[in-house]
Amino acid sequence: MNSYLARHIWPDTAHIIHNRLAIGGCDVSALADRYATPLYLLDEATLRTTMRSYQDAFSAAYYVNHGIHYASKALLNTALTQIIVEEGLGLDVVSGTELLVARRAGMPMDRIHFHGNAKTRAELERALDWGVGAIVVDSLDELAQLAQLSAERAKPQNILLRIAPDIAARTHAHIATGSADSKFGLPLTALEHAVARIQDAPGLRLQGLHAHIGSQIFALDQFCATIDVLLDQAVHLRNCFGVIIDEISPGGGLGVPYVADMPPADISAYAAILGQALRDGCAARNFPPPRLTVEPGRSIIARAGVALYRIVATRSPAKPSLPGHLHIDGGMADNIRPALYGARYTALIANRANAPADAVWIIAGRYCETGDILIRDVALPQAAPGDIVAIPVVGAYTLSMSSNYNLTPRPALILVRDGNAQIIQRRESEDEVLARDQQL
Amino acid sequence: MNSYLARHIWPDTAHIIHNRLAIGGCDVSALADRYATPLYLLDEATLRTTMRSYQDAFSAAYYVNHGIHYASKALLNTALTQIIVEEGLGLDVVSGTELLVARRAGMPMDRIHFHGNAKTRAELERALDWGVGAIVVDSLDELAQLAQLSAERAKPQNILLRIAPDIAARTHAHIATGSADSKFGLPLTALEHAVARIQDAPGLRLQGLHAHIGSQIFALDQFCATIDVLLDQAVHLRNCFGVIIDEISPGGGLGVPYVADMPPADISAYAAILGQALRDGCAARNFPPPRLTVEPGRSIIARAGVALYRIVATRSPAKPSLPGHLHIDGGMADNIRPALYGARYTALIANRANAPADAVWIIAGRYCETGDILIRDVALPQAAPGDIVAIPVVGAYTLSMSSNYNLTPRPALILVRDGNAQIIQRRESEDEVLARDQQL
Repeated sequence: MNSYLARHIWPDTAHIIHNRLAIGGCDVSALADRYATPLYLLDEATLRTTMRSYQDAFSAAYYVNHGIHYASKALLNTALTQIIVEEGLGLDVVSGTELLVARRAGMPMDRIHFHGNAKTRAELERALDWGVGAIVVDSLDELAQLAQLSAERAKPQNILLRIAPDIAARTHAHIATGSADSKFGLPLTALEHAVARIQDAPGLRLQGLHAHIGSQIFALDQFCATIDVLLDQAVHLRNCFGVIIDEISPGGGLGVPYVADMPPADISAYAAILGQALRDGCAARNFPPPRLTVEPGRSIIARAGVALYRIVATRSPAKPSLPGHLHIDGGMADNIRPALYGARYTALIANRANAPADAVWIIAGRYCETGDILIRDVALPQAAPGDIVAIPVVGAYTLSMSSNYNLTPRPALILVRDGNAQIIQRRESEDEVLARDQQL
Repeated sequence: MNSYLARHIWPDTAHIIHNRLAIGGCDVSALADRYATPLYLLDEATLRTTMRSYQDAFSAAYYVNHGIHYASKALLNTALTQIIVEEGLGLDVVSGTELLVARRAGMPMDRIHFHGNAKTRAELERALDWGVGAIVVDSLDELAQLAQLSAERAKPQNILLRIAPDIAARTHAHIATGSADSKFGLPLTALEHAVARIQDAPGLRLQGLHAHIGSQIFALDQFCATIDVLLDQAVHLRNCFGVIIDEISPGGGLGVPYVADMPPADISAYAAILGQALRDGCAARNFPPPRLTVEPGRSIIARAGVALYRIVATRSPAKPSLPGHLHIDGGMADNIRPALYGARYTALIANRANAPADAVWIIAGRYCETGDILIRDVALPQAAPGDIVAIPVVGAYTLSMSSNYNLTPRPALILVRDGNAQIIQRRESEDEVLARDQQL
């Protein structure tokens, strides 16, 4: 074990043995040799521990009942969904294909919420046919279509209404979702109309209210404001329509650290503050405490993931005042977050993890674009072609947004545990990249 | 024909008949019905005309000889490459799989330049084995590897040296590539060392010098500055080493308009200014005029491409001062440019193309992310679910960077011409999206 690894940004099982980084009992440089690079790994222990932390924290913080719904968009594949099923979590999906993965992995359909601002008719029909736990309705147009599609079915479909709470989250504008001009959710002014419509729809049952103010949020008080808005609306609907809301979902969005100088994600504090806000809010309004559903994605998967790249070339600084470049065999096509959000990362040279960090490097991706820089400035040892760069906290919003830019095949994803590695998403082949091409 | 269509941002064949947008002689709303949405189309006439404009303009502007190398990264597939072959253009590739497409499409290997800052050993071996026209060397590490790999081959490999000319292009920082701290190219201070290394390598022959200052550039004088830097270095190498550079490539980067208020791309002016700069520069330096190679990508493919989406839901403004939302069935997974570069686009309602544009809309993508907004503010008619949104100038850097975010399958690409449509890249299936998953 070495103090060089900041515990809150590496997987629980990460440590350094004989100058080499190991995760899940596996020497990651050996994994890179065996499975080729770029290579993504998930540490199963970190994944399961984090999921259990969520379950335990919400059980302790909120006595009524709760649901932890993993947000699929962060990363979804069959094996990961199997683990989520085993750990007793539910799932948020936002597309028909995510729903298909859930089914293939054996996820009970009643543990699924189907989200999205533009669900197609085919997707709504699949959700109804397969009996998802709830459809989270985003617009009056969607509600109208759902009322029609559900009318002749034997069993009413539970729905949540997503509202735009008009709370401006303090995060990156791309991922702040709660303001009134966001594309997501019903404006508060449309809520009464929506509820009246639901009461006229025999195939629909209003189960709850949802709002999500954004992602990568560290100021936990912002979640309390969301709960207050949702409870105010629940009271209003009880008074106007006599409906009792029995599920409240303040979405997800707990921030996670990507570099050592960011604070750890505190799941217990998050659960405690949400639980207390909901209990106190209900007591103050004399409202029966509803089920509390949260939708963590990044805070479950991000830290479990580590990316491995091989250095292909190096370049000394153009001027002595500038850092040199390490050119690696992946980049923005497998991790677009630095280019898209200005995201920060750190790195290790996995095969010389304890060597003195006496150089400053830019980690440059292989893609033909200047913006393809994964890290702008990181202190690392002297490095050479063939060395392995390991980047932590890459479980979320990397492979899920990966592309074939420059026609590069996408990386493999392996699960590591107790010294064993298992491929859970195999590397794409060149033939697969070109399979959809048709000659003239 | 209707004045509503700004000619410089729509394909040459675009016009409006009976209130409906037609391209390549096809009613695009009917194409959307037939092939489903999202759907990308390429107008073959625009493609071929633009390629011929490049050939003609450079033939007229530069009497020695020239090469037009299409930059594959903008968009590449087999059928498009077949067209490029037919039109006599060459190709820039930046990966082994791009090289494979070129071979499958029948591109003569001597018309190919292989670029990239992190070419792997396997890619370099493929390039050598298949005999590409030139490898554009980006670093001393690459040069060392290439010297070794090429040593025992029968025929020397032609190479270009890419230099970082230390010119800061006036464009988006993500796509400005010419500054001294760019990840691309050899610093000028390393050039002598590189040439000495080449002279010691029996398998390598120095054919030319390359520099690329960035993309989406409108101030043509910046290209002249690049040519001056390249010629200065060529003279220096002649004086120091006695080598005669016989190819100069100032890269690509001609800007194109995305919305009507941007100026048209003027290929003739671009060719004229480059040709004159090179002729004058050679005369002033008493240097034998070399071959001139340019690498247009966006300016060939962008305007030929149009994206078609179906409106899934609409939302009235939350406040009267705000625009409403049109929620479509595609977005940032097929076109990440608005989120990644802040790119601007315009749109038409294809099935009511002449209706009065009396509403202001936000075009919101379907992906579960606030940043998934394709257009922030566009005047269009009143619109409803089922209507078709057409977005022009999407040929470049859209499908080539497309992902399966939210596990959505990627769109089909069709080629339209004279009333016929042909699928050249078929829609991805759900099974293909999940094909790489392995169960636990």
